[in-house]
Amino acid sequence: METGLTVEEGRDRILALSEAKGTEYVETEFANGRILSEDIYAQENIPPFDRSPLDGYALRARDIKGASGETPVTLKVIEEVPAGSVPTKEVTEMAAVKILTGAPIPKGADLVVKYEETEFTETEVTFFKPGKSGGNIVPAGEDIRAGQLVLSKGERITPAVCGIIAGLGRPKVQVYQKPVVAFLSTGSELISVGEPLSPGKIRNSSVYTLKSYLEDVGAETILLGNVVDDPEEISEKIRSSVDGADMIVTTGGVSVGDYDFLIRVMEQIGAEILFWKEKLKPGGAFLASVYKGKPVISLSGNPSAAAVAMILNVVPAVRKMCGNREFLLKEATAKLAEDYTKSSPNMRIVPGKLEIREGQAVAVLSGHSGNGMLHPLHGCNILGRIEAGSKGMKKGNSISVYYI
Amino acid sequence: METGLTVEEGRDRILALSEAKGTEYVETEFANGRILSEDIYAQENIPPFDRSPLDGYALRARDIKGASGETPVTLKVIEEVPAGSVPTKEVTEMAAVKILTGAPIPKGADLVVKYEETEFTETEVTFFKPGKSGGNIVPAGEDIRAGQLVLSKGERITPAVCGIIAGLGRPKVQVYQKPVVAFLSTGSELISVGEPLSPGKIRNSSVYTLKSYLEDVGAETILLGNVVDDPEEISEKIRSSVDGADMIVTTGGVSVGDYDFLIRVMEQIGAEILFWKEKLKPGGAFLASVYKGKPVISLSGNPSAAAVAMILNVVPAVRKMCGNREFLLKEATAKLAEDYTKSSPNMRIVPGKLEIREGQAVAVLSGHSGNGMLHPLHGCNILGRIEAGSKGMKKGNSISVYYI
Repeated sequence: METGLTVEEGRDRILALSEAKGTEYVETEFANGRILSEDIYAQENIPPFDRSPLDGYALRARDIKGASGETPVTLKVIEEVPAGSVPTKEVTEMAAVKILTGAPIPKGADLVVKYEETEFTETEVTFFKPGKSGGNIVPAGEDIRAGQLVLSKGERITPAVCGIIAGLGRPKVQVYQKPVVAFLSTGSELISVGEPLSPGKIRNSSVYTLKSYLEDVGAETILLGNVVDDPEEISEKIRSSVDGADMIVTTGGVSVGDYDFLIRVMEQIGAEILFWKEKLKPGGAFLASVYKGKPVISLSGNPSAAAVAMILNVVPAVRKMCGNREFLLKEATAKLAEDYTKSSPNMRIVPGKLEIREGQAVAVLSGHSGNGMLHPLHGCNILGRIEAGSKGMKKGNSISVYYI
Repeated sequence: METGLTVEEGRDRILALSEAKGTEYVETEFANGRILSEDIYAQENIPPFDRSPLDGYALRARDIKGASGETPVTLKVIEEVPAGSVPTKEVTEMAAVKILTGAPIPKGADLVVKYEETEFTETEVTFFKPGKSGGNIVPAGEDIRAGQLVLSKGERITPAVCGIIAGLGRPKVQVYQKPVVAFLSTGSELISVGEPLSPGKIRNSSVYTLKSYLEDVGAETILLGNVVDDPEEISEKIRSSVDGADMIVTTGGVSVGDYDFLIRVMEQIGAEILFWKEKLKPGGAFLASVYKGKPVISLSGNPSAAAVAMILNVVPAVRKMCGNREFLLKEATAKLAEDYTKSSPNMRIVPGKLEIREGQAVAVLSGHSGNGMLHPLHGCNILGRIEAGSKGMKKGNSISVYYI
């Protein structure tokens, strides 16, 4: 059994097992947040015709080239084209067409002059300065040309992307199916959230955090509940759940003590063990296996260790299973806000907050002083990375951070 | 009618009208992303008892104070306490209890020594160095003390908060109801996304982007469809929709041209006009009204103008309606990545991307060169703010940005 991998090695082993699922169609109206599973080409120019970006008058630039405050030029208004209508007349010498925002430019015109820069009656319009040919005309295809590849598979559908898909005339769009991740909590000390505490017991809250992180990156999740530290019960639960899930995450039972036997359970049910333990603190004590072709990740029972190991190792895999081509955690370099005095024989992860202070990216690492500490990741948006062998870091030192 | 407000003035008028809705209970399992509407106090200490953070042996520190490699100390193992079980024996002189991660510390013991630092048999355990009293013991209430205010109303339920709520023994939690925002698109030039283009027509894609942004901050949305530029049809649609919505957003019909008549429509249905126009480019040409006590925001038909005006003015209001106490857009200062040559008589908003480069926050503003431009907000995570009167900005200048 392989053991003691770096985080990058471990993460890549799990990624190698993680593939996008099948595809499905959703209405574009409800596609926000999903991942595109098709390339989208423009069928038409956008905008589809030369159009006016404002309310004004369309005319031939040459007709007003001598216009000024002293020598204004007055043209005849031959037609009025509201948005949604089509001009029927050609703009000829000394003629203008009244045109509204979004309306097509009439034939013959090569300039639109703003309404506010003119004086006008129903039949005439006067100009007080010249304008350039092409002024205030949005040419057909300026945004997107017909036939152009506009969006490609693996892109996340953000609000802006949602509008682009709609603008391309697609009421439905093909996206990847959401992967299903099932969570199983093991440990005889665990009780459910609603149960009263009794001596020696603690509530099983860790999976609520873990599942929410995976939902935020696009997974569906199932809570399989708690099982006591009994190999038969754990095996049975994994066997009966594997067909309904694309990945199984367990918590508890992965450290070195006598009652920690997830490894034996996995071997017993015929799973292939990928590796045990990464050089990572907290969270290094976890087990990655494959059962019936599906990744099974067995995390620590400690909420902090489980969250750190999951974000670094499982979140990229789940993003990849969602079809997202940007599946790795984003990284940045920031300055430490305060001294960090602990030395770190192994790579150490400390949650914190990335703040911008006077244009500088500053990493404020979470203290573990014990007073008022809630969940170690409460209010955090980064995981700070302290390299193996560090004897401590000073305020202002550079630190690599992963965005959560 | 008030006009020409600053963005801050306009935003604050709309905020003043925007109140959180009623509350409802949701299962904690499904509470991620919602906004707490109750204060949550701890009913118990977390952890509920002094416990061991690792697998090892619990003992009295004084019994091994002379231990070393040359003079190891061997104690008798009097009991074994797995996690979830309760110690039944007191640790007395020269005795130790085998203890697993998460198990309560037995009476009499004041130190836990890691399994890996000992040698042991079923009945005896040997120590090779001394340990401090209190070592490897997580005291009851270290994370949270009984009676402490842990979470307060208006806080967004993140994955970490979800775990905290579960850890406090709350299977259900009270949250604010989601506000409902209805979108109405006006404009005779608009056709639906699935319809074939015809001359002079454009597809109504703007609302897909607008609604998705509001969903991302916690609203439910309804698309009311398109209506032509006819006052009767628009009035009727607003009248018949207002009871099912907490806010109405319209697009189109707010510029100065002849066919722009949302103001007249709003006055005709008896709405109170709050203000028309902000000193803002793009997006300044919009109308804020109140109809039957509900905000009605009439945005430009131009997708870029509508998105900028909505993010600056409506997103904070909708966050407030969601109950979120952090309703204002977050701001930061960054360095401009490139020269920005345009001068800006009014405050100008330019979408872009905030990047961290070598520890510096850098604002990369979107070009509007016209080639391959998709939605102006595609790939953007900020709105850069160029102050009124700017004659242009240089690479490296400081710029205020709003996070989207």
